[in-house]
Amino acid sequence: MFNRLCIIGVGLIGGSIARAARQQGLCNNIVGYGRKLDEQNLKTAKSLGVIDDYTLELDKAVQDVDCVVIATPVASIESIFTQLKPLWSNDAIYTDVGSTKGSVIAAAQKVFGVVPDNLVPAHPIAGAENSGVTASVDDLFLNKRLIITPADNASPEAVQKIQVFWERLGSLVSVMDVQHHDSVLAATSHLPHILAFALVDMLGHKDEQSEIFQYAAGGFKDFTRIASSDPTMWKDICAANKDEIIPLIEQLKGELDKIQRLLETNDSQQLFETFTYAKNARQRFLDQFYNN
Amino acid sequence: MFNRLCIIGVGLIGGSIARAARQQGLCNNIVGYGRKLDEQNLKTAKSLGVIDDYTLELDKAVQDVDCVVIATPVASIESIFTQLKPLWSNDAIYTDVGSTKGSVIAAAQKVFGVVPDNLVPAHPIAGAENSGVTASVDDLFLNKRLIITPADNASPEAVQKIQVFWERLGSLVSVMDVQHHDSVLAATSHLPHILAFALVDMLGHKDEQSEIFQYAAGGFKDFTRIASSDPTMWKDICAANKDEIIPLIEQLKGELDKIQRLLETNDSQQLFETFTYAKNARQRFLDQFYNN
Repeated sequence: MFNRLCIIGVGLIGGSIARAARQQGLCNNIVGYGRKLDEQNLKTAKSLGVIDDYTLELDKAVQDVDCVVIATPVASIESIFTQLKPLWSNDAIYTDVGSTKGSVIAAAQKVFGVVPDNLVPAHPIAGAENSGVTASVDDLFLNKRLIITPADNASPEAVQKIQVFWERLGSLVSVMDVQHHDSVLAATSHLPHILAFALVDMLGHKDEQSEIFQYAAGGFKDFTRIASSDPTMWKDICAANKDEIIPLIEQLKGELDKIQRLLETNDSQQLFETFTYAKNARQRFLDQFYNN
Repeated sequence: MFNRLCIIGVGLIGGSIARAARQQGLCNNIVGYGRKLDEQNLKTAKSLGVIDDYTLELDKAVQDVDCVVIATPVASIESIFTQLKPLWSNDAIYTDVGSTKGSVIAAAQKVFGVVPDNLVPAHPIAGAENSGVTASVDDLFLNKRLIITPADNASPEAVQKIQVFWERLGSLVSVMDVQHHDSVLAATSHLPHILAFALVDMLGHKDEQSEIFQYAAGGFKDFTRIASSDPTMWKDICAANKDEIIPLIEQLKGELDKIQRLLETNDSQQLFETFTYAKNARQRFLDQFYNN
């Protein structure tokens, strides 16, 4: 599919893309790029056979490549675009893996003036507790949702090629406009993470005073799992998508107001109906989740 | 330890108590009690060997027993006490398994005038997704926390005996006053359940309009697991402990206000510190959880 693939940022996601691309025979050669401080990780990636070679010089990394995958944290995308600008090639296709897409489009507009027609932003809805290339696997994207958010001026060939690329990595690809992506992910991912962080922040301070955590059980463990996510990554995601997230926080506070009122007025029937609606809605989610 | 044990309500919890008590040789004979509509479940319990016999008549169920375990839903405790009152024996010990304890004490005071000194309320912090005697197991309480909340006038012998009983069923027993129990559980269990129900209620309505659930992933699945809990049981728990829960809902709304303000003011550093505090606090919880 490609002769030479460049991966910028060979961590869990970048490494898993490389592994799957090689396994599926999507390219002949994979070069990794990173900063000086990433060199040890790049060495490991090469020694594991995840990439064929690496370089700390971006001009060498993107030389003669057909496809560039930007797999760095959300917050660094503008800086990466700025470094790529003088090296940008019309003969290559560019994609990324950021969890927020409005920020990618905004960064591209800022750096390039207009979103390049050979850039096709993507978001694989996949991840794992661990990070770094040692955690990468060749089936990270298998049967996982992936959303691509091409701009209006995107080249149909580039969109088509990136869609097929991700499908061959195992993903179930949807095409969506940027705003819809950021709105959906704010609801299904960003808000739950904020809630988990908020609850554990609040209860952690209580625990310091009266040791409540020793009486927390398995339900609490699962509910708070996402509060163990990487704080740096999540502050960046929240900042990048705050326009979508803030109205949802408002709405959730309204929902908590409603439940509080039902408790205060002993409206047992409405409480039951709310909980039942939620239980059924989650079942609807589970049915989809396991039928993917 | 006991000659004859009576279990009122032979479901997941009651059945698991019976299985563990038999396995540990804590009694010679176990009788189950339930209502007419529970008869099929009681038959199953007997055929599985979980109980030796059952009856639908409470006076027969408690005849000559040394210990009565009330393992019915929280909301039925007052009705059970009322039925037990004319049959109450000073030669037996009584315990229960409700998730809220203030409501048990209040029901006892209402029915008996004063909390009987041979009643020792207990709360095993253990459960499972499934319910009914077919889901019962003999190790449900193994290495799980259990809190007993004896009233001031409780007989020290009764407290001691119930403590040893639960310990021999495998539990790690703590003794706590009722108010502290209800305050701790409101924070570690009731509030998280309400949050999960609230979030899924809100997002379920969004999903009906724009199908967001198909893009939700494993993090969402774990975060919302407790929203699949039994609505009847949870409306009763929330109602029974609303005095502890409402101030926590207020506090959580304040916590969400804080995070919203950090987003609005682009206070990335404080956001990072909040998320980091939460991540570390959860690690503290996990360390305790796995060292139990």
